[in-house]
Amino acid sequence: MKKHNFYAGPSIMSQYTIDHTIDAIRDFAGTGLSVLEISHRSKEFQAVMDEAQALFKELLDIPEGYEVLFLGGGASLQFCMVPYNLLKTKAGYVDSGTWAHKAIKEAKLFGDVEIVASSEDDKYVYYPKLDNVPTDLDYLHITTNNTIYGTELREDPDVPVRMVADMSSDIFSRPVDVSKYDLIYGGAQKNLAPAGVTFVIVKTDVLGQAPRAIPTMLNYETHVKKGSMFNTPPVLPIYSALQTLKWYKELGGVKKLQEIDEEKARVLYDAIDESKMFVGTVKPESRSIMNVCFVMKPEYAGLEKDFLDFAATKGIVGIKGHRSVGGFRASLYNALPLDSVKVLTQAMKEFENKH
Amino acid sequence: MKKHNFYAGPSIMSQYTIDHTIDAIRDFAGTGLSVLEISHRSKEFQAVMDEAQALFKELLDIPEGYEVLFLGGGASLQFCMVPYNLLKTKAGYVDSGTWAHKAIKEAKLFGDVEIVASSEDDKYVYYPKLDNVPTDLDYLHITTNNTIYGTELREDPDVPVRMVADMSSDIFSRPVDVSKYDLIYGGAQKNLAPAGVTFVIVKTDVLGQAPRAIPTMLNYETHVKKGSMFNTPPVLPIYSALQTLKWYKELGGVKKLQEIDEEKARVLYDAIDESKMFVGTVKPESRSIMNVCFVMKPEYAGLEKDFLDFAATKGIVGIKGHRSVGGFRASLYNALPLDSVKVLTQAMKEFENKH
Repeated sequence: MKKHNFYAGPSIMSQYTIDHTIDAIRDFAGTGLSVLEISHRSKEFQAVMDEAQALFKELLDIPEGYEVLFLGGGASLQFCMVPYNLLKTKAGYVDSGTWAHKAIKEAKLFGDVEIVASSEDDKYVYYPKLDNVPTDLDYLHITTNNTIYGTELREDPDVPVRMVADMSSDIFSRPVDVSKYDLIYGGAQKNLAPAGVTFVIVKTDVLGQAPRAIPTMLNYETHVKKGSMFNTPPVLPIYSALQTLKWYKELGGVKKLQEIDEEKARVLYDAIDESKMFVGTVKPESRSIMNVCFVMKPEYAGLEKDFLDFAATKGIVGIKGHRSVGGFRASLYNALPLDSVKVLTQAMKEFENKH
Repeated sequence: MKKHNFYAGPSIMSQYTIDHTIDAIRDFAGTGLSVLEISHRSKEFQAVMDEAQALFKELLDIPEGYEVLFLGGGASLQFCMVPYNLLKTKAGYVDSGTWAHKAIKEAKLFGDVEIVASSEDDKYVYYPKLDNVPTDLDYLHITTNNTIYGTELREDPDVPVRMVADMSSDIFSRPVDVSKYDLIYGGAQKNLAPAGVTFVIVKTDVLGQAPRAIPTMLNYETHVKKGSMFNTPPVLPIYSALQTLKWYKELGGVKKLQEIDEEKARVLYDAIDESKMFVGTVKPESRSIMNVCFVMKPEYAGLEKDFLDFAATKGIVGIKGHRSVGGFRASLYNALPLDSVKVLTQAMKEFENKH
């Protein structure tokens, strides 16, 4: 049976990415070798790295003065690399939930941290307002999409300082005004590649000013100087990332992806709003286009497991909600087809009609 | 034409690993999903992680009290993680060349570093003798195999302190007495997996004693406590690593791999020693079983490029020497068949006979 993959990450990859990855595992770029065993110093892999960086810049319309890196270690490693490199005296952080907490914890090891805005007062069901951002911050850190609570900031806010953003789970779902940021980072395992590679978009002239010695691998300058090839990079995940970027370009670029993503989210949120059984957990103005969180209304409590089992009979996987929220979470990343969303909304209706 | 892959790393993977990886990209563990898009929190991937850790311990006969981790970031990240976690006052480092230098540079950020032994005096063509190791070291760091100079320490030396070892390029090529070490680490892209995962074998009771705050992702305790699943691990490289471990077990384990590896190295070193044209660069007692470095004798100087071209006509790739040494380097990792070595020695003889 065809599966509909709603996992929050690692998450659905396009058939394009999967097929081209398999081809390159069999024979990479006509070398007669597998991409699993190719030297990262080979000219064929250098071409992959170059093209992936160029296409990344092209698709996001990244201005001059920024570099794109593909690093190992995950976005969680960025939580400490960001302050290691950029925190001089004080940084501001927006507390939008779990991932922000993790970033804040690491920043506190390196300097003062001011929580500029938080939605903790209402269990993170909305994205905090950025009305009163101080001007004396080295940077303001935002997490644009919260996969756990299903909230998203779908814009690049105007604040009086430059920003650093964790865009792990919504990169390539809308155009981004990169010029407003000093650095954007994210784990690739949602909208870009299989797990194992982290993208970093960094404004190079903000580097080299940290008031501390930085271990070589944690210093962005190391990777900028070596074109993201200081050490052996995660070759296969980067190869797969390039395939995804090519597929995005074929589809029509980021604006087209935004249209598709917003249509998918609209179909699912409409189904939730029209339902007698299900209800969304997030305030409408903060609803994530990528991760849709919903629960059963109190009068249907106890049927959650039955619905998960019923959905599984339709091939639907990965919709169990995070334990912090409960209920259900459907992640609608770029590679998820609208058809899968329709299978889910149909399953919701069928289940509702039965009970 | 069949290719003979002598790259120094990333390097040849077994057909077993390649085929099983492709199978799992098509359908992972009967889930109907690709291993490229499976949640690391799925029970199917948890089983992969559990089996990979257990088999790693079994094959290397790792005693109680140690844990095996699969992390991102590469061995280069370990160069700073080791002193971050283990250096209290002073560490000893063995200077066996390039990789040792990189490790030493990071350790100096965290405390005193004593170079206990070095072969710099003779351009690293031998492995330094470990006769006078001080007793007041937090640990002695060794790089058991130097991929660039082709030297190797094929034993676990008796020294008066515990050791930390970078075994990136010779893990699984001989039995190791893990009890002599506090920590063993390595990039997986030689004898284990495609690039993107780093293995760490750590004695857990040495952790938690560092005189400094450690960022969460750089703290081994974080990963030990979470069974190497604190954050999203590099899923596909870990899956491939498990396939290699299974293949090693089928082949007969580490002692069998040692026999095979030593036989391959013997065939190539014999051909070099019998040659009028080629000569090894490393002192015989320090010759690496994994990376065989050789050059042309002065009277044949200038024919290097011709030999590379001639070898290429036989399907031989990856034998150009590192720029620090010049000449040639043939890496004979576990997945390289003896037949490939014979193709190389035959090519050497044919070329010699022509000139």
